[in-house]
Amino acid sequence: MDAITRLLKPRSVAVIGASADITKTAGRPVAYLLKHGFSGKIFPVNPKASEICGLPCYADLGSLPEVPDVAMVLLGAERAQQAVRELAQLGCSAAIVLASGYTEVGEDGARRQRELIEAAGSMRILGPNTIGLVNITDGVVLSPSGALEMDHFPAGTVGVVSQSGGILGALLSRAAARGVGLSKLISTSNEVDLELADFIDWLVDDPATQVIALYVETVRDAGRFRTAALRAASAGKPIVAFKIGRSEAGAKAAVSHTGALAGADRMYDALFRQVGVIRAERFDDLLDIPAALAAGRKLKGKRVAILTSTGGAGTLVSDELGMAGFDTPVPDETTAQALRSLQTGDQAALDRNPIDVTLAGLKPDLLRGAISALLRSPTYDALVVIVGSSALAMPELMANAIQSCLSESDKPIIAYVSPHAPHIAALLTHRGVPAFSAPESCASALGAMFHAGDWTAPDFLPPAAATLPPPTAATLPLHEIPKGSLDEEQAKRLFAAFGIPGAREIVVSTPDDAASAARELGDRVVLKVLSSEILHKSDVGGVAVGLSSAEIGQRLVDMQSAVRAGTGSMPTRFLVQEMVTGGTEVMIGMHRDALGTAILLGMGGVTAELFQDTTMRLLPPAGGLSKAEALSMARELKTWPLLDGYRGRVPSDVDALVRAIVAFSQMVAKLGDRLLEAEINPLFVLPKGEGVRAADAIAVFAE
Amino acid sequence: MDAITRLLKPRSVAVIGASADITKTAGRPVAYLLKHGFSGKIFPVNPKASEICGLPCYADLGSLPEVPDVAMVLLGAERAQQAVRELAQLGCSAAIVLASGYTEVGEDGARRQRELIEAAGSMRILGPNTIGLVNITDGVVLSPSGALEMDHFPAGTVGVVSQSGGILGALLSRAAARGVGLSKLISTSNEVDLELADFIDWLVDDPATQVIALYVETVRDAGRFRTAALRAASAGKPIVAFKIGRSEAGAKAAVSHTGALAGADRMYDALFRQVGVIRAERFDDLLDIPAALAAGRKLKGKRVAILTSTGGAGTLVSDELGMAGFDTPVPDETTAQALRSLQTGDQAALDRNPIDVTLAGLKPDLLRGAISALLRSPTYDALVVIVGSSALAMPELMANAIQSCLSESDKPIIAYVSPHAPHIAALLTHRGVPAFSAPESCASALGAMFHAGDWTAPDFLPPAAATLPPPTAATLPLHEIPKGSLDEEQAKRLFAAFGIPGAREIVVSTPDDAASAARELGDRVVLKVLSSEILHKSDVGGVAVGLSSAEIGQRLVDMQSAVRAGTGSMPTRFLVQEMVTGGTEVMIGMHRDALGTAILLGMGGVTAELFQDTTMRLLPPAGGLSKAEALSMARELKTWPLLDGYRGRVPSDVDALVRAIVAFSQMVAKLGDRLLEAEINPLFVLPKGEGVRAADAIAVFAE
Repeated sequence: MDAITRLLKPRSVAVIGASADITKTAGRPVAYLLKHGFSGKIFPVNPKASEICGLPCYADLGSLPEVPDVAMVLLGAERAQQAVRELAQLGCSAAIVLASGYTEVGEDGARRQRELIEAAGSMRILGPNTIGLVNITDGVVLSPSGALEMDHFPAGTVGVVSQSGGILGALLSRAAARGVGLSKLISTSNEVDLELADFIDWLVDDPATQVIALYVETVRDAGRFRTAALRAASAGKPIVAFKIGRSEAGAKAAVSHTGALAGADRMYDALFRQVGVIRAERFDDLLDIPAALAAGRKLKGKRVAILTSTGGAGTLVSDELGMAGFDTPVPDETTAQALRSLQTGDQAALDRNPIDVTLAGLKPDLLRGAISALLRSPTYDALVVIVGSSALAMPELMANAIQSCLSESDKPIIAYVSPHAPHIAALLTHRGVPAFSAPESCASALGAMFHAGDWTAPDFLPPAAATLPPPTAATLPLHEIPKGSLDEEQAKRLFAAFGIPGAREIVVSTPDDAASAARELGDRVVLKVLSSEILHKSDVGGVAVGLSSAEIGQRLVDMQSAVRAGTGSMPTRFLVQEMVTGGTEVMIGMHRDALGTAILLGMGGVTAELFQDTTMRLLPPAGGLSKAEALSMARELKTWPLLDGYRGRVPSDVDALVRAIVAFSQMVAKLGDRLLEAEINPLFVLPKGEGVRAADAIAVFAE
Repeated sequence: MDAITRLLKPRSVAVIGASADITKTAGRPVAYLLKHGFSGKIFPVNPKASEICGLPCYADLGSLPEVPDVAMVLLGAERAQQAVRELAQLGCSAAIVLASGYTEVGEDGARRQRELIEAAGSMRILGPNTIGLVNITDGVVLSPSGALEMDHFPAGTVGVVSQSGGILGALLSRAAARGVGLSKLISTSNEVDLELADFIDWLVDDPATQVIALYVETVRDAGRFRTAALRAASAGKPIVAFKIGRSEAGAKAAVSHTGALAGADRMYDALFRQVGVIRAERFDDLLDIPAALAAGRKLKGKRVAILTSTGGAGTLVSDELGMAGFDTPVPDETTAQALRSLQTGDQAALDRNPIDVTLAGLKPDLLRGAISALLRSPTYDALVVIVGSSALAMPELMANAIQSCLSESDKPIIAYVSPHAPHIAALLTHRGVPAFSAPESCASALGAMFHAGDWTAPDFLPPAAATLPPPTAATLPLHEIPKGSLDEEQAKRLFAAFGIPGAREIVVSTPDDAASAARELGDRVVLKVLSSEILHKSDVGGVAVGLSSAEIGQRLVDMQSAVRAGTGSMPTRFLVQEMVTGGTEVMIGMHRDALGTAILLGMGGVTAELFQDTTMRLLPPAGGLSKAEALSMARELKTWPLLDGYRGRVPSDVDALVRAIVAFSQMVAKLGDRLLEAEINPLFVLPKGEGVRAADAIAVFAE
């Protein structure tokens, strides 16, 4: 049995620093273990007590009658370290360290954290700064969380891993109040050893767990997270994650726009999406969505029937579902007839949706008939049942009616409870009908059930093909592996070597050379100062467009003066570039942070820039993006119609754009960490069949 | 005493059709009146009973001992009408008609509804299809709502008007469970007589009501609503409205784009915003925001302190507030020192925000000291206090600490309750500290408190100046009041007469005339077919741009053929128009629906169109928009920076744009209902000082 299994299902637990005073935090774990029915052995350890909660108390670790499977260490940070060292020497499998005062409090704490790791040796550590764990399936509570004051927690199939102990407690008590059954809850907190991915992995193999809910502050090892999440997806166990840090400003990059547009939170969005993790948008979603998914039903379409006895709440839910992209079509004639045959009363609205049986329709047979008819109907993919204030007097009516129909269909059925009636909602949820008290929750729940029925792992290049050799000077169009910023011409040559064509251009130094270059390039050209030092050419007067060969010479002289005035040094090299017209501007960039390396695609032009119309994909561990992924990026842009022939526009060469995105991603993968920044902005996507042209480019290598 | 006051505070109530069986809907009103302590007289009326709930029952209306102030009519639709007629004849002030089966069920119902109005005469009617009303202030419950099964409702200052009876019941029970005190709840439903505006008006004058919450399905009389809402604003009683119908598709207009962009829901947005109504976005907001506003504190800035004993929940709320545009700055040094002097323990984080006093800080003196220090701090405009799981064992601790500091400051204080602890949340709310269990609710609450401190009525033209005479042929640049569609040249002449300059243009019929017009207009022109029949010129090949005088003649001949092929008739008139360059394209349009007439401003160009970057204002009853309103419209566009010199662009002539919006609005006001559609698209806004030019225009008059 591995150490994590021992940790979650220990046969014996030592509680180091246990207190006999149950009003103190250190007094709670033993009391809670007993209260919630732990069936194994409990060894309180405290030199100052002889008995705690009726159990013999041990003076020190050396006095223990046997080596415990798990130890809860309730001591402060400095003493905890000594206890961990002794436990490791005894051969204990895992220790839960509750003390705070580690990395979260600065340098002293970071030192303590390093010492803790060293003291633990091969023993596994949960924490420090953790509130511990709760295994509801097996009645193991290793935590002082005040939430454990509650007497009963419904067991269920949702496993929770939280990087915050306080949030773990909140989820535990909230789930219990709502009738959402949980399997395990683990607070990983500082993650000096065991972390998110360890417990995702373990929960994938836990038969009691079918859905995994995560409260995430930071993913410390993106590679392990990705692997564990994809394993969960393969096992058909959906993961729902709430991630804070959404309000952080985008990272500030020195040169490219991509950094500011990428931002840490958007990297998480990309990661979650690529491994099938459903992101909870509202905090309530972190229970609402798992509650919905725990019912085990997948939504295969977007057409929803709403059955109600009260008009207002039905309309409210219908409106909310409409906002979330669901349809609420009227019943087909066969279904309407079946409903009418139930004789629900004169005022019932049976040929509309919401289907309103009115108060007169609140009878067991009638409700069962209506639910059956709607589940059978080919018009609907799911059913929402509304529970109105009238149900307050008959809490079981709706639950019984739905439950007796559940086996007739595998379509999702959820409930909206309109009045304050938590007992009815909990009853429904407990009986397999996820019930919600916010209309927005109904939309979130159905959305996640649709995702669960729809998601497939993205189509990356197979790892073999994607494993690229590191670059050498010979494979690059350069004399040696470069250092620092490339100039625009070098950057475009680099991208061209990887298959992304640049606009035609000629490097010049004199007015005469500029004039002859202009003639060669079609006599309507762009003139740009060429220097790896100047990051924003326009800002120093270093760009002029639409020049003819007649005027370009003088313009070069003027530009020389302007740039000298702006930068203090005299520019000697210029780029004469063809005017690219008739294309749609996009940008392609990259962004690296702790989560990995992402490719960013954005619509170009000033208007799209104001709307930050961009999309991102993280690169797989070794390799670039597939064509299918590149195309899906382009189609995700809100301004995709601009590329796709919107309003009589000429359709763009999307194939060439897709090839350019793939090539860019392969280049980034191949060049590895030495490439700090790379961006093509703008890339002109010409009409279909005419390809793409990089009109400006940035590449920055490590010094 | 007026009839509405009688309705809400009756001295006597007749219950027509009362049943002795309290399990039936008709059995509940008398039982609920007694249960909730009605102090006036109750007259049950039912020929089949002699006594109901211990009260003598009357056989018919003629047997009543006195004329009741109010009658609840529990009969079905057909019999209700006769009862209403008799009640009116008796001189009863108002009747509450619960029956359904009126306009909501089609033509038969509409007939019944007309008959009901006629039967009522001068007696006021609430309903039909209503669940009645609840006056918590005075202990009057005139409703069979199942929510009244609850024993107690906290009295408070939030008045509720709902167009759905079921939602009224839901709000009643939800508010009670949360400790949100209500004053009155009225379900207006079909609004055959008394409607939203009547009760807003009444609640403005009700000393027990300080905040008004509305559940809106449709505003039937926008003028009365506007007047009542502005009265509430003047009285300092904020209105919060949840409006369904958000998912309805935009209205389809025949000619202009404006109709599709406007949409019924956006008209409500404009109406609410212009009269200071706060729109509840989530259904929970409809209680959350009034609960916050009922505390009577206004937020004067965006800087929020978060005081917590549990790190996770503090960070969660901080993140959510950041998303909503609030700042959470660290404490200033004086405040940090004051916090440190409280000696909260080694691990406390007192120079950060959230300010984390840790579990060790959960002591009355310490909490009071921390709250006082944060309220005194010049760094903060508001305080959010986090209640963690540890509070489950000491529910009063935080409430007592906050309450003892409340009088020290008028800054808003709200609470976030992290575990499931509805009793703690209700306790806090009841004691004047609005408490929420969703982090999103904290953001909504503070947002509304900021709005309440910030909103001022929009600056319309004064009614006197704005009252315009109706148009005559003489005031228009036309021979007579037009009918049907104007052609482009006529439409632009119309707009020019109201002060919106068009691009220079000349109407031509022959290739030679076109060539000379092109020479006159600068030899780089646009050629367009001119016809009031052709709505989409581009679609039939009727537009060509960038033409010189040399090529325009042939182009006109080609266009003639193309248009004939496309429309089947030979065009005879064309417009030669100067090429307008160097401007930013916007559109100005109008939209009319049941709510009134709105002016729409949108960014032009295909990219902005994809993002539907538009904003709207409803016109005041008589008159146009003020310059201040027009400017605020322009500044609301997400692409406003395009007009404002973004990234080195030349700033646009915003003054001229503002004048054009005002002129357009005055034109629409003056032309009145005869003008069905009007749109300028595009209007070029030239660089500062150069004005605007209408480049294309539509105007459609009634036939």
